[in-house]
Amino acid sequence: MAENAAELLVEVHRGPILESQHGGHAVIWRHGEGMIGSWGEPDKRILPRSSSKMIQALPLVESGAANAFGLSDEHLALACASHQGAAIHTDRVTRWLDDLDLGEADLRCGVQWPSDVPARDGLICSQCGPDQRHNNCSGKHTGFLTFTKHVGAGPEYHDPSHTLQRAISEAWDDVTDEANPDFAIDGCSAPNFATRLSGLARAMAAFAAAREDGGARQAAMVRLRNAMMRHPDLVAGEGRACTRLMRVMEGRAAIKTGAEGVFIAIVPELSVGVALKISDGATRGSEAAITQILGALGVLDPNHPEARAFTHGPIRNWNGIETGHYRIADNLAGWRP
Amino acid sequence: MAENAAELLVEVHRGPILESQHGGHAVIWRHGEGMIGSWGEPDKRILPRSSSKMIQALPLVESGAANAFGLSDEHLALACASHQGAAIHTDRVTRWLDDLDLGEADLRCGVQWPSDVPARDGLICSQCGPDQRHNNCSGKHTGFLTFTKHVGAGPEYHDPSHTLQRAISEAWDDVTDEANPDFAIDGCSAPNFATRLSGLARAMAAFAAAREDGGARQAAMVRLRNAMMRHPDLVAGEGRACTRLMRVMEGRAAIKTGAEGVFIAIVPELSVGVALKISDGATRGSEAAITQILGALGVLDPNHPEARAFTHGPIRNWNGIETGHYRIADNLAGWRP
Repeated sequence: MAENAAELLVEVHRGPILESQHGGHAVIWRHGEGMIGSWGEPDKRILPRSSSKMIQALPLVESGAANAFGLSDEHLALACASHQGAAIHTDRVTRWLDDLDLGEADLRCGVQWPSDVPARDGLICSQCGPDQRHNNCSGKHTGFLTFTKHVGAGPEYHDPSHTLQRAISEAWDDVTDEANPDFAIDGCSAPNFATRLSGLARAMAAFAAAREDGGARQAAMVRLRNAMMRHPDLVAGEGRACTRLMRVMEGRAAIKTGAEGVFIAIVPELSVGVALKISDGATRGSEAAITQILGALGVLDPNHPEARAFTHGPIRNWNGIETGHYRIADNLAGWRP
Repeated sequence: MAENAAELLVEVHRGPILESQHGGHAVIWRHGEGMIGSWGEPDKRILPRSSSKMIQALPLVESGAANAFGLSDEHLALACASHQGAAIHTDRVTRWLDDLDLGEADLRCGVQWPSDVPARDGLICSQCGPDQRHNNCSGKHTGFLTFTKHVGAGPEYHDPSHTLQRAISEAWDDVTDEANPDFAIDGCSAPNFATRLSGLARAMAAFAAAREDGGARQAAMVRLRNAMMRHPDLVAGEGRACTRLMRVMEGRAAIKTGAEGVFIAIVPELSVGVALKISDGATRGSEAAITQILGALGVLDPNHPEARAFTHGPIRNWNGIETGHYRIADNLAGWRP
C-alpha cells in the first residue's frame, strides 16, 4: 500500500496465523517542545470525528454560556461524550434540555438506537423507538443549544455558517494551527473540521498544559478535561474503552475515541497530547494503540487487566475458548518517552 | 506498512477527505488455466473462516450421509451458511436435528445472539436467551452431526482428531493443494484450516468447473454450489451481502463471506473462482471488492442498485444525509478478464 504511508501498529493473531493487521498514524506532542513521538505520516490530514468534542465545546465555556446556565462537570462531560444512550446519559440530557426550556425536537443530531443494552431492550419491549436523546452525540448537541440560547442565535446550530460553527472553526484554527479548515458532515450532522494529526496532538497538548489562571481559553480547557476525567461513565459507558481506561487512570489522563479509528489523549502531568488514526478505521486498532501509548507514558499500568484486554486480548469464541490475541507491533511497543 | 504487501483496494471518503482505506490480497483463478488476476500477495496464507464452509461440507455429501438422511438443497445451503438466526434458519435447523434424533445440546458451536432483528427482539421481549441454534454456524454444525451419525463416530465432532475433521482436512489438502494445513479454532469452535489465498481461489474454481458426471467429488461440489445459489436467503439473511448479491445474480455465482474480511466467489459459467482477504479484516472492504470483481467478470450488473450500494454507498448519517461514499481503488477498478 505505497499510496498509504501508514505504519504497522497492531496485529490480530488466531492460532498460529497472523490473521489481520492495523496500520496507522500517531503523534505524541509535548506542549512547548513539539513532537516527541510519531508513527506513519505525522502531518496526515484526518477527520478527528468525535475525538474533537472537547474542542467543539470550547465556545460553550468561553462564551460564558456554561456559567450563565450553571453547567456542572456532569454537563460538560456529556458535552464531550459519545455516550451509549443509557439512562444515566438520557436522563441528564432530558433535564438539561428542560433547564433550557427546550425539548428533544430542538436537537438536530438525528435518532439513533442506544448501544446500552438495558436501554435498548427497554425500548424494544415497550414497543417504543429511540429518539434524538439516545443519539451518542446528544450531550454535545445540548451543549450546542446552550451556547445558541446564550448568544441568541438561530435554531439551526449545525449549519456551517451558524454563529456557533464559526466560533468552533475559530477555536479550531487556533488550537490545531489549521487555518480555514475543510470540513465534512459528521454522523450527527454537525460539521467536523479536518486537521493534520500533528495539529490535533498539538491541541491535546494545549489542553494538557492549560492552567486555570492562564486566561479564558486555558481555563475552559482545564474545566473540560477535568470534567471528562471526573465522569468516565458519562463520556462513553459500561464496557467502552474511554470509560474503562479513564476509571483505571483515576484522573491522570482524559481520553476520547472518534469514529473511523481515531483516539486522543490529554495527559496533564506531562503536558502531553496524543492523537492517532488507524488507516482502516478499526476501533480495536485505535483502542490497542492508545492503551499502549498511555502505558509507555506511565499514566496507565500496562499490566492492569483493563489495559491488557485492549493490547493483548485474549480473543474468545462463542464457547469462551481462547482463539487468538492482539499484539502491539514492535515499532510501537518499543517506544519510550 | 512494508511488512504487509497488501494492495490498496477500497477507499472510504467523507466530504472532501479520504477518510479510511482498505488494502488486501485477491486472486481470480480459472480452472485448468490458473491465476488470471491478482492483487497483493497471491500466496498469502490466510484463515478463510466461514468462506470455506462449502469445503467443510464436502464429506457430508461425499460420504453418502446427505443422501442417507434425504438432505435437500435447503439443508445443504444451511450447511454452507453464516445465517442470521432468523426463524427461516432456526426452524429448519430444529427440524433437521429432530430428523437426526438429536437436539440443540448436541451442537458444539456455542450460543450466539441472532443478528436478525425480529428474532432478537422476540427473544428479548419473551425474556428468553438465544441457544446454539441461533449461532450463525448451526447449519454447518448440523451438517457435521449428520456426517457423524452416518459414519457412527463420537459426539465431539469439532475435535481436530475426530473422523470428520480428518475427512475435512483431506478434502482441504486436495482442493486447495495445501498439504497438512495448519489450523486455528474458529468462532464456532471447529478447526479452520489455513490456506494460501491462491489455493482457496483454486478450490473455488474447482467448485465452479465441477460437473455432475465428474465423479463423487465433482458431483458433491455441484450440489453444494447449486444449493447456495438456489437459497440466497438461507446462506446469510435479509440485508446481508451474500443474500442480496446472489439474489441479483440469479444463479450465475455462489458467493460467501468469512470473518476478518474474507470473501469467495464461484462462477460456474466461466469456470472461475475468486478469493480475497482485506488485511485489516473489514467486512465493508471485502464486500466492495467482491462486488467489483463480480461486475468485472460480467455476472453482476455493476450499475444495479444492490451492487452500487457496496461499491459506492452512499454513506448516510442519522438524519439520512449523504455524508460520504466508497471508491474502488484504480488498480482494482481497471481490471478486466
